[in-house]
Amino acid sequence: MKLTVKLVDIGTREVMLNIVDARNIGVLTSDRVQILNETRGVSVAAFVDTTATLLPQGSIGIYRITNERLGVNDGDIVEVRKAERPASLQYIKKKMDGEKLSNEETYAIIKDVVSDDLSPAELTAYITASYIHALDMDEVEHLTRAMVDTGEQIKFHTHPIVDKHSIGGVPGNKISLIVVPIIAASGLKIPKTSSRAITGAGGTADLMEVLAPVEFSATEVQQMTMKVGGAIVWGGATNIAPADDKIIIQEYPFRIDARGQMLASVMAKKFAVGADLVVIDIPVGAHAKVATVQEGRKLAREFIELGDRLNMRVECALTYGDSPVGRAIGANLEVREALRVLEGAEVPGSLIQKSVSIAGMALEMSGKAPRDMGNKAALQLIRNGEALKKFRQIIEIQGGDPNVKSDDIVPGEYEFVVKAPATGYVIELNNRSLISLARTAGAPHDRGAGLLLHAKKGSRVQAGEPIFTIYADRSWRLQKAIEEGRSLMPVVVEGMLLDRVPHESKWE
Amino acid sequence: MKLTVKLVDIGTREVMLNIVDARNIGVLTSDRVQILNETRGVSVAAFVDTTATLLPQGSIGIYRITNERLGVNDGDIVEVRKAERPASLQYIKKKMDGEKLSNEETYAIIKDVVSDDLSPAELTAYITASYIHALDMDEVEHLTRAMVDTGEQIKFHTHPIVDKHSIGGVPGNKISLIVVPIIAASGLKIPKTSSRAITGAGGTADLMEVLAPVEFSATEVQQMTMKVGGAIVWGGATNIAPADDKIIIQEYPFRIDARGQMLASVMAKKFAVGADLVVIDIPVGAHAKVATVQEGRKLAREFIELGDRLNMRVECALTYGDSPVGRAIGANLEVREALRVLEGAEVPGSLIQKSVSIAGMALEMSGKAPRDMGNKAALQLIRNGEALKKFRQIIEIQGGDPNVKSDDIVPGEYEFVVKAPATGYVIELNNRSLISLARTAGAPHDRGAGLLLHAKKGSRVQAGEPIFTIYADRSWRLQKAIEEGRSLMPVVVEGMLLDRVPHESKWE
Repeated sequence: MKLTVKLVDIGTREVMLNIVDARNIGVLTSDRVQILNETRGVSVAAFVDTTATLLPQGSIGIYRITNERLGVNDGDIVEVRKAERPASLQYIKKKMDGEKLSNEETYAIIKDVVSDDLSPAELTAYITASYIHALDMDEVEHLTRAMVDTGEQIKFHTHPIVDKHSIGGVPGNKISLIVVPIIAASGLKIPKTSSRAITGAGGTADLMEVLAPVEFSATEVQQMTMKVGGAIVWGGATNIAPADDKIIIQEYPFRIDARGQMLASVMAKKFAVGADLVVIDIPVGAHAKVATVQEGRKLAREFIELGDRLNMRVECALTYGDSPVGRAIGANLEVREALRVLEGAEVPGSLIQKSVSIAGMALEMSGKAPRDMGNKAALQLIRNGEALKKFRQIIEIQGGDPNVKSDDIVPGEYEFVVKAPATGYVIELNNRSLISLARTAGAPHDRGAGLLLHAKKGSRVQAGEPIFTIYADRSWRLQKAIEEGRSLMPVVVEGMLLDRVPHESKWE
Repeated sequence: MKLTVKLVDIGTREVMLNIVDARNIGVLTSDRVQILNETRGVSVAAFVDTTATLLPQGSIGIYRITNERLGVNDGDIVEVRKAERPASLQYIKKKMDGEKLSNEETYAIIKDVVSDDLSPAELTAYITASYIHALDMDEVEHLTRAMVDTGEQIKFHTHPIVDKHSIGGVPGNKISLIVVPIIAASGLKIPKTSSRAITGAGGTADLMEVLAPVEFSATEVQQMTMKVGGAIVWGGATNIAPADDKIIIQEYPFRIDARGQMLASVMAKKFAVGADLVVIDIPVGAHAKVATVQEGRKLAREFIELGDRLNMRVECALTYGDSPVGRAIGANLEVREALRVLEGAEVPGSLIQKSVSIAGMALEMSGKAPRDMGNKAALQLIRNGEALKKFRQIIEIQGGDPNVKSDDIVPGEYEFVVKAPATGYVIELNNRSLISLARTAGAPHDRGAGLLLHAKKGSRVQAGEPIFTIYADRSWRLQKAIEEGRSLMPVVVEGMLLDRVPHESKWE
């Protein structure tokens, strides 16, 4: 059917049809139509919304994402027909039936994911099926390669290229801001792509953005890395392994992170930036993503095996994941804390130790430090100011102010100090509650929002002593966080009353 | 955030936000917001579309389905905030993890399905998880009850109420048009709700609509049944078990029909119309939904057990499902064939036999016929004209012409006769190819479109004799069907050449 184009500024891969035209074409809401732009010889499939009044018969509303591929103008005539069902739906069905998918089948699915040719529901079926019928290592390798091949890739002509990744779940894990400068300062190259927070209080990209722009193309990342040895950018802007973000968005409602997809997601990004040596940080703890050391070791072996299949040398660090890393949670607070460490601060010990351990592994793997001397070499690069100097070069090449100092970065103007209700030991810091509180205070969107912990797990506090401060950029956000803090109780002091239950029984 | 309403005529449960407002609320495309209409005290959740230009900041576009619940007008002010995640998502996750769901958990999911509080992707995750981790009989019972309780129900004060169902997959299965009149003519009551074709060439509702309107409320179905003993309506118009249609739509891309959901879907509709006695027709055959008699018996036992749990007496008939029932496929052709049988035609035997067998089972179960005499009693009600008289009463009460005759119902004006390419026995009639061909010719939308089989499986044909005729209402549809027929070859005559492969090897 020939229809006249009306462009509609809605950000989805859909089109709008008058309900009568839809019936004549033989489609319902959510079905697919194929739209042919004969002038440009481009044909695009899109999902159907229907209307009785917004569009007259004979017209088609083309939404923004649909038109990014179709490239038509208001008033153009397009040919519209019922679309064929993509072959990848059969492969998803096959996975639902518990069968193993071939390399080609996995590629077909991921290609359709990247080109938005699968609806969110269809992609969710694939994710659910892969979550239940866990991918084996062949399938994980296929998925990783498909994610790499359907996106941009960076090729370096020098080697080795280093990369690192933390699998997340621990608040305050700002170590990349210290690890990347150390590694680059040693003379190695590390093109670090990172994520923004989805469920956390701030991803590395959110933190780095306090200091400099983080949105660059893959080519720019390569060029910056060649010039100063490193970069810390938002992966979402690069078109590296773009399938991954689309998968993560659909996993979000269920808070799942299927093992096979997680392995592929991490390693595809490392492979696509041309990494030869990769250090993976696996936080372990009751409130982290990985609950036990056994589970952590198993995951580590899987990362290593997948690395071998892709010709990347992988080492993993199981790290303590039951408490925040350092004392700061939230963009500005974390950046200030990391800068202070690079400027020579002796605390917090947990942050410094973890950063030099991870950086040290990379130095040893590359031969920049002898075996068991990586930590020391990494610490030396902080102490002698080289890491700070390198970080400033990275900030500068990304377009930030290279003269920034930790004191320039300030937390939100609204604050509330939470005091110990009793004297005793801090026996619990709940990661999830701390993250939730920081988000309620405005993180990651409000950069000044977050938490600063004064007491850490195992430390002794006196009644009335501050245990943490909540910061916010907006007063109402602070109020909401204070209220939420009362019910979540993210920090528990031994001996403190959790609740008081009044006596309601009667005298007999 | 307070926003000004602009109503938007798009038929989905969404709202449109300016991208800046969306960021301030803290939501992205596909996230949920809660919208509060303070005047009416109504609060509704909806999914977010974003735009940079269609709506100014400070406004919210409310789509049609969203406003069905919200009830606001252009210019109204509503309060909009980020919505809570529905609890049912946790239960879906639990099912993904292979755990059994309780009655309450299943109810929460189905309630959210009916109220559109789950996105298509979230519902698909539930369907996929239930397909892979098959529901046990407790869960099927819970699902059935939840489907019934979240929709309308019919209560009768007389008993027994009879119902029948065919699980489908066989083309030309118009038996309800004969079975319902027979049962009603015997003095029993049968409020038959039926479906429109999704993947088939015509559902019973599509067929009945040739003769009379089929869209009625549950109350109207009850009243019509009390007056004339039966009705044949489209279930989709009644709001009986509305969850079922929403589930089926999401299953469609994968062509799945999970056993637990199918059991619940069928039995919820029977339970909701107040049925006491139910006959289930299970076609068995290589090209039917159920491939073997063993599988059919297992499914029959499950229907019977589920019936027992719901206090319905169920009997099942395993029927021959490898060939079409009768000779006609497509709305008008099937209706004409069924009317001819009620008018006294002696053929087609397969249609008459199947109809009286199914009707006879109901007559026996209700005591209207002695054991093993049901077939004969049913046939008698055709032969003495009572079934036709009753069918005319049903047509009349639904608003159709009670004087309709089979000769009034004509197939499409465009036709093409497919002739036997060779002399021999008809060795294959492929159900799926026949259905596909009928759909290409225009079924179910074009009522005159369809196929009329002249030879059936096992019959002997001479080269050049007609084996089937394709009918269409539109000439281009007929052309497409002819082309498709050449490649699908739905009817195979023994000894006919399937293809000719030329000799390409060379002399040595």
